[in-house]
Amino acid sequence: MPIGDDAVAGNGLLDRRLFLKGGLVGGLTLLSASAHGVERRDWMKTPGSSLSDEGIPSPHESHVKRTSIRTAPGTSGSGISSTPHEHLDGIITPSRLHFERHHSGIPEIRPDEHRLVIHGQVERPLSFSLDSLARYPTVSRIHFLECAGNSGALLMPKPIQGPCSSLHGLISGSEWGGVPLSSLLNEAGVKSGARWILAEGADSSVMSRSIPLDKAMDDALVALYQNGERLRPANGYPMRLFLPGWEGNTSVKWLRTLKVVDEPAMTRDETSKYTDLQRDGSSKIFTFEMGVKSIITKPSPGLQLHEVGVYPISGIAWSGGGRIRRVDVSADGGRSWGEAALDEHVLPKSLTRFRIPWRWDGGPAVILSRATDERGEVQPTRETVLGARSAAGFYHNNCMQAWRVDPEGTITHVYI
Amino acid sequence: MPIGDDAVAGNGLLDRRLFLKGGLVGGLTLLSASAHGVERRDWMKTPGSSLSDEGIPSPHESHVKRTSIRTAPGTSGSGISSTPHEHLDGIITPSRLHFERHHSGIPEIRPDEHRLVIHGQVERPLSFSLDSLARYPTVSRIHFLECAGNSGALLMPKPIQGPCSSLHGLISGSEWGGVPLSSLLNEAGVKSGARWILAEGADSSVMSRSIPLDKAMDDALVALYQNGERLRPANGYPMRLFLPGWEGNTSVKWLRTLKVVDEPAMTRDETSKYTDLQRDGSSKIFTFEMGVKSIITKPSPGLQLHEVGVYPISGIAWSGGGRIRRVDVSADGGRSWGEAALDEHVLPKSLTRFRIPWRWDGGPAVILSRATDERGEVQPTRETVLGARSAAGFYHNNCMQAWRVDPEGTITHVYI
Repeated sequence: MPIGDDAVAGNGLLDRRLFLKGGLVGGLTLLSASAHGVERRDWMKTPGSSLSDEGIPSPHESHVKRTSIRTAPGTSGSGISSTPHEHLDGIITPSRLHFERHHSGIPEIRPDEHRLVIHGQVERPLSFSLDSLARYPTVSRIHFLECAGNSGALLMPKPIQGPCSSLHGLISGSEWGGVPLSSLLNEAGVKSGARWILAEGADSSVMSRSIPLDKAMDDALVALYQNGERLRPANGYPMRLFLPGWEGNTSVKWLRTLKVVDEPAMTRDETSKYTDLQRDGSSKIFTFEMGVKSIITKPSPGLQLHEVGVYPISGIAWSGGGRIRRVDVSADGGRSWGEAALDEHVLPKSLTRFRIPWRWDGGPAVILSRATDERGEVQPTRETVLGARSAAGFYHNNCMQAWRVDPEGTITHVYI
Repeated sequence: MPIGDDAVAGNGLLDRRLFLKGGLVGGLTLLSASAHGVERRDWMKTPGSSLSDEGIPSPHESHVKRTSIRTAPGTSGSGISSTPHEHLDGIITPSRLHFERHHSGIPEIRPDEHRLVIHGQVERPLSFSLDSLARYPTVSRIHFLECAGNSGALLMPKPIQGPCSSLHGLISGSEWGGVPLSSLLNEAGVKSGARWILAEGADSSVMSRSIPLDKAMDDALVALYQNGERLRPANGYPMRLFLPGWEGNTSVKWLRTLKVVDEPAMTRDETSKYTDLQRDGSSKIFTFEMGVKSIITKPSPGLQLHEVGVYPISGIAWSGGGRIRRVDVSADGGRSWGEAALDEHVLPKSLTRFRIPWRWDGGPAVILSRATDERGEVQPTRETVLGARSAAGFYHNNCMQAWRVDPEGTITHVYI
């Protein structure tokens, strides 16, 4: 089957079902009659290493680490580290590679002494130890977590060069397990008239955010587990708030108090940060839900193409509003589009993996993706996002990301 | 709401929706007016630790390791290690805690030199490097992997005492990503008449299994990724076969050759092992699909109950035949049953988490679970499994597991 028959869009974009039919990819080796490839290598000639109480990655994968660690001047623990999406696949991020955003480092909490207090406008102020929380129902669900500042670099005047993770590494996907916050609030008895909750972390910055009560009673969790095991310290051990689909900062780590209140507290963390200055001088605040978005993770800067031929284009898409409905991909800078295949598990407020084959002819190409969610919301262009904003805008950017492939097979970040 | 109104079965089993309505659990602390619980602990008084390129679990969770490491006499790498399900939650097992079953240790493979060869009854024998496999389509799906020997201890004449993981720790759940084997076989061109594939591993035991071609063309993967990152060495780095729902041994690790053949090869690993001797002296062989099964992970041996009150019963269920339809739980040794709640993601050939609240009145109780899959297959009793088998039978046991709770709150393994 000639691959040329399967073009679905310009510059070599192929039908997403091509691979399932078994197309010739090239880049493989026909085996010679001497069957050289079936020789036994030295690692087959002696017994291998022992069983162990904890597995570790291969030493050949030691380059797969969190990247782009940046800390505020004069601090060691106020900053970010990024998930290396260019080396990963699927929709789960290994916990060791989940992005970090801390405001004053990782507190070393002794779990037996930690308490979660629910107070304020409630009938019965309550204090929960880990042991008492363990008596409540737990649920687990797969969700993304994205920092409001993720992809903010794309709003700079010129495209910043770096790997995909340096631009978009503040998003990760995990299975989160914990107690529905609604159970705990019902136990405390929220007084009528209360509309907000002030959530406070047990780090030394006392990271604090105001959360609408409606969200707290909807799908919010007090998370105790991540990817099957207890939260790790960098993700809020022994417990964090988790608000599916909302900006990461509201999922307060090291959660210690929830105060039920009438109005938002207007804390430092929701006024000086996480607000979006508009062109008219006003600021948007409490823009909690993360917009529909996608990025191509392969190919991306740093992943060289070595020869002309068919390559899989792969990436992640997500929406704070629910499930991803479709992802379209262009290989000609947005002039024409082909629909990508989605991996089997398309879950609400979760990373969704998309893929489409592409025949690179060795010429220049600009590849980009555009996600649509189940509500019909479509990922915007950079121009649209910039339209209403002040040039100082930084947060909540969900614009499309374009990568340029040059004839040498090198990939760079471009604006279209 | 008095909890007594919500009993759904004998000995304190409560309606699975109880917690969602906000029942009083007990075991928590009403906060005093002095708000003692809101005091700032010492870990809030200094900046926390730094960002890092790789996260690790809390030192307070160092007991959560693989357990029950057993090796064959005279070897260090032929044996098993187990997933500590009694400490985990959800449906994803952290890769560091995935069970191990090796036949001659973990080979230290240099990925650049490793090849996957497809040969035998094919039009074009092919040799794939990691680079050439990366040109093929990848898919990712969440599936369980279970050793055929998991839970075999329950067929011994007397119940062996130990934590849940020592009996049932040879099952784990992961997101597996890789190339559909059908793509590679189509590329090689399977000759008509061929019906089986012999898969061989690159460990020094050359672990080899015969796989029906139908399965290879259905949902089999050449897996490269586990939980988003490259496979770890203990799970087949740089590549393994992955056969969803089938006994773990057929998902050959460190995959090096796939030989397309007419008939099963009757290798050592499929004749001396992984067969089930029957009462009449015959043996069942090639019983690939793992049966419908469930285990209660909490409470389970080693997890003490300290006071009378409501506790969540939680566990995992799975079936090699598809999705879990329902899980029933008994607290009176199987006389009466209540239906458990299933967590949101009920995926085919995947772990499914079930939960139901239980009011322990301080008396003796025997708790057990019974899974039903989407085909209507029901997890059998121990008696049923033993019925047809020789006393030497060991593999493919999916019988129900009963735990006895005694008045001191201690939990033991019992047969019912």
